[in-house]
Amino acid sequence: MLISVLNGPNLNLLGEREPEVYGRTTLAEVEQLVRADAARLGVSLEWFQTNHEGAFVEAVQGLRGRAQGALINGAAFTHTSLAIRDALLAVRVPFVEVHLSNIFSRELERRHSRFADLAIGIVAGFGVQSYRLGLEALVSKVRG
Amino acid sequence: MLISVLNGPNLNLLGEREPEVYGRTTLAEVEQLVRADAARLGVSLEWFQTNHEGAFVEAVQGLRGRAQGALINGAAFTHTSLAIRDALLAVRVPFVEVHLSNIFSRELERRHSRFADLAIGIVAGFGVQSYRLGLEALVSKVRG
Amino acid sequence: MLISVLNGPNLNLLGEREPEVYGRTTLAEVEQLVRADAARLGVSLEWFQTNHEGAFVEAVQGLRGRAQGALINGAAFTHTSLAIRDALLAVRVPFVEVHLSNIFSRELERRHSRFADLAIGIVAGFGVQSYRLGLEALVSKVRG
Amino acid sequence: MLISVLNGPNLNLLGEREPEVYGRTTLAEVEQLVRADAARLGVSLEWFQTNHEGAFVEAVQGLRGRAQGALINGAAFTHTSLAIRDALLAVRVPFVEVHLSNIFSRELERRHSRFADLAIGIVAGFGVQSYRLGLEALVSKVRG
Amino acid sequence: MLISVLNGPNLNLLGEREPEVYGRTTLAEVEQLVRADAARLGVSLEWFQTNHEGAFVEAVQGLRGRAQGALINGAAFTHTSLAIRDALLAVRVPFVEVHLSNIFSRELERRHSRFADLAIGIVAGFGVQSYRLGLEALVSKVRG
Amino acid sequence: MLISVLNGPNLNLLGEREPEVYGRTTLAEVEQLVRADAARLGVSLEWFQTNHEGAFVEAVQGLRGRAQGALINGAAFTHTSLAIRDALLAVRVPFVEVHLSNIFSRELERRHSRFADLAIGIVAGFGVQSYRLGLEALVSKVRG
Amino acid sequence: MLISVLNGPNLNLLGEREPEVYGRTTLAEVEQLVRADAARLGVSLEWFQTNHEGAFVEAVQGLRGRAQGALINGAAFTHTSLAIRDALLAVRVPFVEVHLSNIFSRELERRHSRFADLAIGIVAGFGVQSYRLGLEALVSKVRG
Amino acid sequence: MLISVLNGPNLNLLGEREPEVYGRTTLAEVEQLVRADAARLGVSLEWFQTNHEGAFVEAVQGLRGRAQGALINGAAFTHTSLAIRDALLAVRVPFVEVHLSNIFSRELERRHSRFADLAIGIVAGFGVQSYRLGLEALVSKVRG
Amino acid sequence: MLISVLNGPNLNLLGEREPEVYGRTTLAEVEQLVRADAARLGVSLEWFQTNHEGAFVEAVQGLRGRAQGALINGAAFTHTSLAIRDALLAVRVPFVEVHLSNIFSRELERRHSRFADLAIGIVAGFGVQSYRLGLEALVSKVRG
Amino acid sequence: MLISVLNGPNLNLLGEREPEVYGRTTLAEVEQLVRADAARLGVSLEWFQTNHEGAFVEAVQGLRGRAQGALINGAAFTHTSLAIRDALLAVRVPFVEVHLSNIFSRELERRHSRFADLAIGIVAGFGVQSYRLGLEALVSKVRG
Amino acid sequence: MLISVLNGPNLNLLGEREPEVYGRTTLAEVEQLVRADAARLGVSLEWFQTNHEGAFVEAVQGLRGRAQGALINGAAFTHTSLAIRDALLAVRVPFVEVHLSNIFSRELERRHSRFADLAIGIVAGFGVQSYRLGLEALVSKVRG
Amino acid sequence: MLISVLNGPNLNLLGEREPEVYGRTTLAEVEQLVRADAARLGVSLEWFQTNHEGAFVEAVQGLRGRAQGALINGAAFTHTSLAIRDALLAVRVPFVEVHLSNIFSRELERRHSRFADLAIGIVAGFGVQSYRLGLEALVSKVRG
Repeated sequence: MLISVLNGPNLNLLGEREPEVYGRTTLAEVEQLVRADAARLGVSLEWFQTNHEGAFVEAVQGLRGRAQGALINGAAFTHTSLAIRDALLAVRVPFVEVHLSNIFSRELERRHSRFADLAIGIVAGFGVQSYRLGLEALVSKVRG
Repeated sequence: MLISVLNGPNLNLLGEREPEVYGRTTLAEVEQLVRADAARLGVSLEWFQTNHEGAFVEAVQGLRGRAQGALINGAAFTHTSLAIRDALLAVRVPFVEVHLSNIFSRELERRHSRFADLAIGIVAGFGVQSYRLGLEALVSKVRG
Repeated sequence: MLISVLNGPNLNLLGEREPEVYGRTTLAEVEQLVRADAARLGVSLEWFQTNHEGAFVEAVQGLRGRAQGALINGAAFTHTSLAIRDALLAVRVPFVEVHLSNIFSRELERRHSRFADLAIGIVAGFGVQSYRLGLEALVSKVRG
Repeated sequence: MLISVLNGPNLNLLGEREPEVYGRTTLAEVEQLVRADAARLGVSLEWFQTNHEGAFVEAVQGLRGRAQGALINGAAFTHTSLAIRDALLAVRVPFVEVHLSNIFSRELERRHSRFADLAIGIVAGFGVQSYRLGLEALVSKVRG
Repeated sequence: MLISVLNGPNLNLLGEREPEVYGRTTLAEVEQLVRADAARLGVSLEWFQTNHEGAFVEAVQGLRGRAQGALINGAAFTHTSLAIRDALLAVRVPFVEVHLSNIFSRELERRHSRFADLAIGIVAGFGVQSYRLGLEALVSKVRG
Repeated sequence: MLISVLNGPNLNLLGEREPEVYGRTTLAEVEQLVRADAARLGVSLEWFQTNHEGAFVEAVQGLRGRAQGALINGAAFTHTSLAIRDALLAVRVPFVEVHLSNIFSRELERRHSRFADLAIGIVAGFGVQSYRLGLEALVSKVRG
Repeated sequence: MLISVLNGPNLNLLGEREPEVYGRTTLAEVEQLVRADAARLGVSLEWFQTNHEGAFVEAVQGLRGRAQGALINGAAFTHTSLAIRDALLAVRVPFVEVHLSNIFSRELERRHSRFADLAIGIVAGFGVQSYRLGLEALVSKVRG
Repeated sequence: MLISVLNGPNLNLLGEREPEVYGRTTLAEVEQLVRADAARLGVSLEWFQTNHEGAFVEAVQGLRGRAQGALINGAAFTHTSLAIRDALLAVRVPFVEVHLSNIFSRELERRHSRFADLAIGIVAGFGVQSYRLGLEALVSKVRG
Repeated sequence: MLISVLNGPNLNLLGEREPEVYGRTTLAEVEQLVRADAARLGVSLEWFQTNHEGAFVEAVQGLRGRAQGALINGAAFTHTSLAIRDALLAVRVPFVEVHLSNIFSRELERRHSRFADLAIGIVAGFGVQSYRLGLEALVSKVRG
Repeated sequence: MLISVLNGPNLNLLGEREPEVYGRTTLAEVEQLVRADAARLGVSLEWFQTNHEGAFVEAVQGLRGRAQGALINGAAFTHTSLAIRDALLAVRVPFVEVHLSNIFSRELERRHSRFADLAIGIVAGFGVQSYRLGLEALVSKVRG
Repeated sequence: MLISVLNGPNLNLLGEREPEVYGRTTLAEVEQLVRADAARLGVSLEWFQTNHEGAFVEAVQGLRGRAQGALINGAAFTHTSLAIRDALLAVRVPFVEVHLSNIFSRELERRHSRFADLAIGIVAGFGVQSYRLGLEALVSKVRG
Repeated sequence: MLISVLNGPNLNLLGEREPEVYGRTTLAEVEQLVRADAARLGVSLEWFQTNHEGAFVEAVQGLRGRAQGALINGAAFTHTSLAIRDALLAVRVPFVEVHLSNIFSRELERRHSRFADLAIGIVAGFGVQSYRLGLEALVSKVRG
């Protein structure tokens, strides 16, 4: 079973920007932790980050016929991209939406997700643990 | 460590109503599963369900000086009760908001939670597993 | 066949409050008239009034497997209670919504009903007769 | 006592269009049933249908000094016509608003009636029986 | 195969009013051009124009069991008439919505069509050619 | 010089309906007074009333090449008819909008006019005198 | 009988600013024309202009027990001043609202008047003649 | 003369929750201070607190024929309860609305009161003194 | 201790305008009553009324370094003046907002105060007594 | 004459995704059909698809001085991209907007196009034929 | 060349109020700095501050035929005064709008300027330097 | 000191598109002018333009630890890109927002900037000079 993790814009700065808010864990360290969980769960994992909406669209398109599920942290694209929504509608791969912070206690424009109604579920507000819990939920769902 | 699980109106019908939507697990069975997790995590657990807003308010008030955290599934009260919000503001016990279904893919009036901005985080859309992941997140957060 | 009549908050004051508006018929007298109709139609009738939302929710829950239909005058709860709506969704007992006054000629916040789209139909504006016509329509609908 | 029944646009197609939704009863058959009720109640009845707003306005104007009450199913005009509202305000004949379907479970633009606040009351959702119960309520109200 | 072309209010003035905007082609000349296309496509064509909403409703009703498709330019009724929408819902004849001008570059109240979601498609902005392309699309669609 | 006076729906009831509000002057008497003014001003006058939007549209269309100005009291159509607005745009005859009552002290939906921005000006609130002052202003404007 | 004419901010520039829009008549010349009409109608007239809201409020207050009516062109204050509205409510002197231009064909924020619902009526769009017709209507109304 | 003081949800926590915001005075101490004032003013006082909307409704109902006035601090119910509003409308006992904090400097949803337009007046922002001044105003009003 | 009382536009008419609504007490008499209270409380009092927003702004500015508190009845300025709000923000003198009438039972545009969130608290609806209770609350607050 | 066809995000999946909705024709096959039409009409055609907004912007920029017209199916970008709108404003090449589906019968956020008011016209709802009719209309318009 | 600098309400308090926010520079010192710049640029400068809207209106009116440009910091009037906007429209003197603080990061009601669309440009957020940069921009624009 | 200038989509067309609006200066010429200023101010300058949102995000990210400030003209991205906003939030490099035209006098959707509240300040409406003034302000701010 292959699970793909897709990360949106500015997540490449994780651990370096506003550490008092987001902590000091880098995206590479998040990847390492999630890869360890994946190994324990017996699933393959691929990891992707981009700041380009078009590249994100194509990453979603590339899930077809290859991945059994996805963890998606669209970052800012979560709130603005209809093109990624269309790609998610097209490939219909089951996915879980994850966020490091609690988006519901943030400003208005960050409380609406354009993907969330297509997701199996959402995990938000637990930092790195959002990814880990999301992976666990996704795998158990896909395995039925 | 004591964790309290508070369940709102109509959850007492779980497993019996619309089983094709909500599955056949009853609230008692959910309780059993979550109690097993709590035991494994080494925390005490108390379980509460009510159809009365006033009783819910008082259950929240009762957390002070007794429980270290709460899992809260306010059901319909999530979207209408300012009194419960005030109780949550008053006791300031850390809590995780959980929902069986993905409230973000439901009708408009169910997409806004009056509690979520006060929560550590939210887990929604994974059925029973929402409770279990929420408990895990809550405990690790409270333990720091 | 058992028909349940559920009355919401402040209806216990009927006949005593603002008699120039609502008339001098008390809720007990309404009950008597509707019971007479029920007898004539050959159906059993149970009568319930509460000022507590939670008690109303549980009265709706109690319809399952026992009543074949309901007449519902939610009074103020008609416009505010999502918990009662959820109970109505859960038990799926056919019901008719009735109102003593013409809610469409009242202030804005009383023109939207949170239950009406789930009802078979609505009868409003005819005082006591709203209950009697509602009962007639309900019974003929349930009898098919 | 003369009661006038005014039917709005497209009701002439009743029984032929979307029979799975509206049933197979034609408007002529509705008329027959209502006429029978009128006879039983000892009132004269006149029946009118039009697809023209101007004709509907003039039918309302024609009620003055002639009819003691009216049953009004404005169909689409219910939601758009200010001219008919003005006619109803001018003639001040008591009327009951009726609808075959439960307009509260339909799309948004069909939930607001431009006439309902002027009516004695409203009966909606019971098919042909909406007319019959409406007539009963109207006659008993006019007779006082 | 019979195709009906229905034209709404003020289109009878075409070619005479604001010629610098709408050109100098009259509605009679448009009819001639479209009739020529119909002949070439081997379909019968009937042509109708009215300034009366009720007459438009009845023209739509008259399509049942007689016409296989319609070209509809509702003009101002496009934005205001719920009665015509109901007629279109009732007869369910396939139709294409056409407009001489690009309604999307006009003032706000002319950008919403009450019919367009029921149409096969829409052609707007090409003057007379909107009718001709619309006819072509309609015929090929109806012929399957 | 020919001036046309166009009166909308329900104005034919003037003087008979709600006399305590609109006074006891009938539309025929208004016509007489305005005709006397027209004679004094040396202009021809034609007078028209209809309850049909389509007939109103055609009356406006008929102004072209015949009338030099119009007094328009659209009554309820003032607030709902886009078709009449289109006719006014097409014929471009100068007109003055008149209202018997002060529409700014009435309910919200009667405060917006769909014609007023196309008019030379508006006179409202002076009963019959609104027509007379409107005629005076119109004639002096047209005479330039 | 004393009639007061109150003019709001920037009307002192009339005739000098944007003459291609407002014409070349100065406010002094408007005053002369209106004074001539007043003489002909046999009423005294006082004339006032200010750019200060407070001074306008006090001018309205000063009408009590002295003037029998007022012509009011509030200019920009028409759309923003609640204090002048309160003064008009307090003194209850009958007044007519006048505007040089047709405010209904101007930008949105100039279409709502905070005074108009308190006025006898409104005359707008006829330049200087708006004052003259307004005076005529006011005098005939006050004389009853 | 009997004055009833009705306190809404979470006020039972006063003095214990967020003391840096609400101070350290408990509700029992507030009661003592207000009772002392009542004694000085020569009126009887009854004191009530509940977290249950239904109990609050019934407390209001219980005022009829017994209390001459009420001090009401509805807390969260102030902003959400239509049922309490209905009870206040039914019993028509004169009351003053009081709030410990200045609700106008709080978040949006707490700035609208569903009761305030029915009150004699409102006193807000002075902590315990809001109750004391409210009592003084109420008594002097009721005594006329 | 110096307390300043600032009164907004049209309050100079108190007692003379609409006495059936506002009573027959003049502003001078209100001043006398409040001055008596001030004497009893041992504070100096200065009294100010203006119909000019600019003068009100400067009166607020003049509080700095001179007055220890203010009673403010901004009348119409309460709802429209951002300049007075800025002055209040600048001088930061503690103040209580008072209103003679219950602004919550008035029309919509009078329910929002631009100053109230900056005030210690608000007293409204008790006529002259609003000033007296406001003074009492202000003095006890300033004295701490 | 060179015509450019620009296709937005996810159109590369055409024929493969949701074939029951969009049919089984691939974008390559659409291109073939449109190229055949172009040949018949005697115009050159270039074909472009991208999932990147920036690449779409530059494709529009590249039209200047090279292409005489464009067919544009912006897909999801139609509803979100202001940058493409700016490019269209800058190059001012005549274009026709085409859509495979009837966007007016889709969800709300897909009913507003950010480009349509700049287009000659729009063709939507006819599947592949939308491109073909759009090409025909574009060529005849450009050829004048 | 004469440049006029117009300052709105409460700017006379600059340097004294909230120095931690606005700094300790007084308006007199700002004037000195700007006068030095003006000297260097070879332009005359006049300086004006008022708390009265009417005086501000007249200051704008006074620019005609005398000043070649203006720097305008309307302060609170920026967001409320239509009368000043009208004065700016009337005199048509080129002006630059300046603000000490970044109004776009302030509360909602301060983000809309009623003058900015009439200005050459805006400089905001740089404290005193906003005036200096604004002057430089204004002079170079006026000199062309 | 290094200052980076970031230019958004379609600015590469400057001087060629709509020269009657934007003038004939190209972006290369703007760069030359700004570079000259930078030299005079003794700061290094780097210049960047892109039509790709992702590339813009990465340019912002690249400012960290290298540039001391930025001039940002986001063009269309200003109004739509949350991803660039996030990048600006992450790097926290001081920046000034510049626009060639006065965006406050443009259409609605161009009046809201998603970056402006993060900026030191904004300079808009002065053509090329916006860049130059912005640079000056930025440098003096950064130098403190």
